[in-house]
Amino acid sequence: VAKLDRAAGSGDTRDKTRQQVVALIRSAGQIARIDIAAATGVSPATITAITQEMIQAGLVEEVAPEAGRSAAGRGRPRVSLKLRGDAHLVAGIKVSFRVLSLVMIDFEGNTVAEHVRPLTAPRLAPDDMVRDIQALLTEATAQLGLGIDGISGLGVGLAGTIDAIEGFVHWSPSLTKRNIALRDLLEAALPMPVFLDNDANLVAKAEQLFGEARGVRDFIVVTIEQGVGMGIVIDGEVFRGTRGCGAEFGHTKVHLDGALCRCGQRGCLEAYVADYALLREADVSIPLSTGKTPEERLALLFDAAHEGDPTACSIVRRASRMFAMGLANLVNIFDPRLVILSGERMSHDFLYSDEVLTEMHNAVVQVDAPPPEVKIHKWGDQMWAKGAAAYAMEGVTELAVRRLAVDA
Amino acid sequence: VAKLDRAAGSGDTRDKTRQQVVALIRSAGQIARIDIAAATGVSPATITAITQEMIQAGLVEEVAPEAGRSAAGRGRPRVSLKLRGDAHLVAGIKVSFRVLSLVMIDFEGNTVAEHVRPLTAPRLAPDDMVRDIQALLTEATAQLGLGIDGISGLGVGLAGTIDAIEGFVHWSPSLTKRNIALRDLLEAALPMPVFLDNDANLVAKAEQLFGEARGVRDFIVVTIEQGVGMGIVIDGEVFRGTRGCGAEFGHTKVHLDGALCRCGQRGCLEAYVADYALLREADVSIPLSTGKTPEERLALLFDAAHEGDPTACSIVRRASRMFAMGLANLVNIFDPRLVILSGERMSHDFLYSDEVLTEMHNAVVQVDAPPPEVKIHKWGDQMWAKGAAAYAMEGVTELAVRRLAVDA
Repeated sequence: VAKLDRAAGSGDTRDKTRQQVVALIRSAGQIARIDIAAATGVSPATITAITQEMIQAGLVEEVAPEAGRSAAGRGRPRVSLKLRGDAHLVAGIKVSFRVLSLVMIDFEGNTVAEHVRPLTAPRLAPDDMVRDIQALLTEATAQLGLGIDGISGLGVGLAGTIDAIEGFVHWSPSLTKRNIALRDLLEAALPMPVFLDNDANLVAKAEQLFGEARGVRDFIVVTIEQGVGMGIVIDGEVFRGTRGCGAEFGHTKVHLDGALCRCGQRGCLEAYVADYALLREADVSIPLSTGKTPEERLALLFDAAHEGDPTACSIVRRASRMFAMGLANLVNIFDPRLVILSGERMSHDFLYSDEVLTEMHNAVVQVDAPPPEVKIHKWGDQMWAKGAAAYAMEGVTELAVRRLAVDA
Repeated sequence: VAKLDRAAGSGDTRDKTRQQVVALIRSAGQIARIDIAAATGVSPATITAITQEMIQAGLVEEVAPEAGRSAAGRGRPRVSLKLRGDAHLVAGIKVSFRVLSLVMIDFEGNTVAEHVRPLTAPRLAPDDMVRDIQALLTEATAQLGLGIDGISGLGVGLAGTIDAIEGFVHWSPSLTKRNIALRDLLEAALPMPVFLDNDANLVAKAEQLFGEARGVRDFIVVTIEQGVGMGIVIDGEVFRGTRGCGAEFGHTKVHLDGALCRCGQRGCLEAYVADYALLREADVSIPLSTGKTPEERLALLFDAAHEGDPTACSIVRRASRMFAMGLANLVNIFDPRLVILSGERMSHDFLYSDEVLTEMHNAVVQVDAPPPEVKIHKWGDQMWAKGAAAYAMEGVTELAVRRLAVDA
């Protein structure tokens, strides 16, 4: 497969139809040409021409008609179309605090490989981040007997304020520098197009494709890791805001002139619920052994709260209530069908508690219609990476289909 | 014109194309068939058939070719199509505290009439609200020499928590009762389909079509009247949430366990910035003559603040800062291109002040990209009513086009 070129393509109306057709085949799994024509409102002749291009380009293949159908005596058996799994292989990488997690999927969306590699440091200079990602891709493709150029596209998710459209990192806790055109750096070092996004948006993408939000058009994912993140899906699409940096749930203000946040402002939700916020309070008032790591000190705080220590309870309770207030504000603004609380940190059970959900419901505008469903979905970095892979697959598909327009 | 029927229509793919074609003609003003085909990607033969139906149904008419074009020697002059202004007349009504305001527009969007009528009371039983609206429509159509059935559709905007899709009022300060199927009540009493929405959504619609947001795909309108409202437009569409009752900006919480709100909850933004919130503080601490109306007492408060009275300044300043914090949260979540502060109350200048905008910018997540533009647009009930009319026109157009599918 030739390298996909971001600049290629015409963007004409036929191109739009082609994108629609591939998306339809992907969501259907298998579908006959006549059903594609019916679903898109495009003439059967055009669908035949478009799908023929796709077959020739190796993106789509015919499926032998089902025995049952041909036996039904309804004339010529209908041939269905499906995507060709080996048309493209894409990789998704989630950058977290200590490791890079990778998932590779084929053009049909099947998981082909999973891989984890420690980061050389939690915060890296941009060039070192690029080198770590390159090394992971080399390892992972080698295990499949491929070169790194066997991958048609790479999705990368990391925490921070990220302009997904420009591939630009305004700020990330994983990088030592601000304002990095990380996508361009990666594309300069790697032979495939790269798709960059905020990790919470990729969790939203993963929930939509493989998780709790399948079939839901409007939902919000709140992620709980070191900080608090959010992904918003409206009418089936990840909502990114104008500058690609909306959905800053962790930095919405929950108290005027409130607690100081790491971002330098006061009263941010993170300044009440993030690890550093809890430890800042705990360190003042509970004797937590000082030689220990932050994780160990957090564990001591949660243990003390579970045992009923009043100060520990007060610290955890205030964080829970602020979190519930923040969630209620999201519901008041978006009125989503579904809210998913997502993360893998069992230690943060207090944020997933019934008390939080009750408090949230009490702070939502009361109407005589059921409030949004809240689902709790604890999952790990591999699912985030799969979201990154799914995001890259969207991009790769668009580029591959755009190339058809050029070749046609 | 026969009465439009909400239940009619097939919703087939051709119907979708018809809706697209009318929308295109509306936004273009005048457009040739071949350009419609190019813009929609539909075959010229289908466009010719569809537009012929529309011409026969009286929705669309041909425009004589321009002299310049036919003289250019490029063969047969191209005939353009436009909407027929008198195909349908629709009315929009804004229900405010003391009056009903009405605007009538024709199918091309031209304003045909404007009208105002006092409400019989600020809060009405649903049947009385229906009677007041009916009386206004009768008056306004009589002036044009028409019967009330000369109007093809009615848009109504009122404050409160409203499910626009179901035409259901969960709660409104203009009604004495909760949970009213107001659209059904109006449609039972009136000969035309009715389209109901929250007034702030209609301001958003009006800003998009006639105001400060023309050509902007993503923006937020914050309205300041008795309370605080919000309309959200994402990718050109008013965003309504799942239950049709999102965008409750006034009831987002800005303080945990904060000031008591009229909704019964604590810490709502309205509990800091609404008229009643300001008066509640002023009444405690400033000698405002008690015999006066709320409006007069508010005016005294603002006068005292302008003259530097420390308590009055403190009251107004806290409200401004809470408002700025609420605005910053909207920007942090939506990252819109544009925020419009909309309303007509000059007395509330403190909410439109430079201090509020500076405070808002300081509480927004800082990235090295310009923050959203903030525009202040003071306008009156007539523009809100025009938004209601535009909303009704969308609905009427959809129903009229759907009927083509049935007749075809």
